[in-house]
Amino acid sequence: MAGLILALDVTDREKAINIANEVADYLHAIKIGWPLVMAAGMDIIDSLSQIKPIICDFKVADIPNTTKLIVREARNHGAMGIIVHGFVGRDSIKAAVDEAGKMKVYVVAEMSHPGALDFMQKHTDDIVLMAKEVGAAGLIAPATRPERITHIRSLAGDMEILAPGVGAQGGSAKEAIEAGATHIIVGRRIYEANEPAKAAKALYDELTL
Amino acid sequence: MAGLILALDVTDREKAINIANEVADYLHAIKIGWPLVMAAGMDIIDSLSQIKPIICDFKVADIPNTTKLIVREARNHGAMGIIVHGFVGRDSIKAAVDEAGKMKVYVVAEMSHPGALDFMQKHTDDIVLMAKEVGAAGLIAPATRPERITHIRSLAGDMEILAPGVGAQGGSAKEAIEAGATHIIVGRRIYEANEPAKAAKALYDELTL
Repeated sequence: MAGLILALDVTDREKAINIANEVADYLHAIKIGWPLVMAAGMDIIDSLSQIKPIICDFKVADIPNTTKLIVREARNHGAMGIIVHGFVGRDSIKAAVDEAGKMKVYVVAEMSHPGALDFMQKHTDDIVLMAKEVGAAGLIAPATRPERITHIRSLAGDMEILAPGVGAQGGSAKEAIEAGATHIIVGRRIYEANEPAKAAKALYDELTL
Repeated sequence: MAGLILALDVTDREKAINIANEVADYLHAIKIGWPLVMAAGMDIIDSLSQIKPIICDFKVADIPNTTKLIVREARNHGAMGIIVHGFVGRDSIKAAVDEAGKMKVYVVAEMSHPGALDFMQKHTDDIVLMAKEVGAAGLIAPATRPERITHIRSLAGDMEILAPGVGAQGGSAKEAIEAGATHIIVGRRIYEANEPAKAAKALYDELTL
């Protein structure tokens, strides 16, 4: 069944925890990034993990040894998953998978900003195949370009595909899932809503109907 | 004059500050990464900045808006510089430069691990030119491959070039500087030395003689 992931892109600890509690019933997981961790400290991962599984969107793009250290810290704080870049090459993503243990590693297959076309998109296919070979759990691919999700699904076998960009960025949950995503990632449409729980429920219903 | 940058890749706050104090006289700056920040908190940047200018080696590789948030946090904690990836494209590195204010943005031109050959190295020239065009202060290029520093210098005009990989990884300070680096980055050879100050002084003398 398709699942909803909240991109909790706020930078205030209390606000983060309040929103997470409000919408938890409708979520598969919560994705957090560096800005929240920089503002609230690493133990925000431990705190939010009490509410829902946490995916650390750290877009790790470093040499294998530093990658391991970052993955280890995320794991020690209780994260369920971590997002790493594939463009740094096979040894770096393999280091992430080796260090992750039961934590899931998600590799960025493609991004949605204009700059992604400068270099990254040329290598999507190779990055997807590499991620599959080293045993990554899943991929990140943009809901704003469902035709790219279809293409990535054709290479990815049964890996998870998490699709950001639904809502404020214009992507459609339904189209992303039909194209082959297993989970959609939604941020502002939920956390900026007047009634976050209502917004999350609407997306949840859209996915499960 | 060529300068020495310490890669302070430890994960203990007290140890980080002690080593920084011990070797400060020989340094141009100190480079720290996510593992230390994850372990010690963002205010380690403020603390170390009291000793020497701090470069945050965060290898930022995200969409423009998230890039801005990360750069802003580093700046607010007093960092002198931040390292970002060029691979994510022009809009992301421009976002970093726009947000940085007086802080210097260094763009990764090339990395030294084997995986860097999978995708990144194909784009070095374009990334160097892009970094120059958007107004980045400098580039990162590996001391382990001085012939690549020579090549990157031929494209980079008068940008700074910081060269990691001297010491434990086998790069030579002298060769990196002769090839066109303005600063060398040294980690373990200093912080794992029995006498860090002596190790730092030896490198400092090698650069200034």
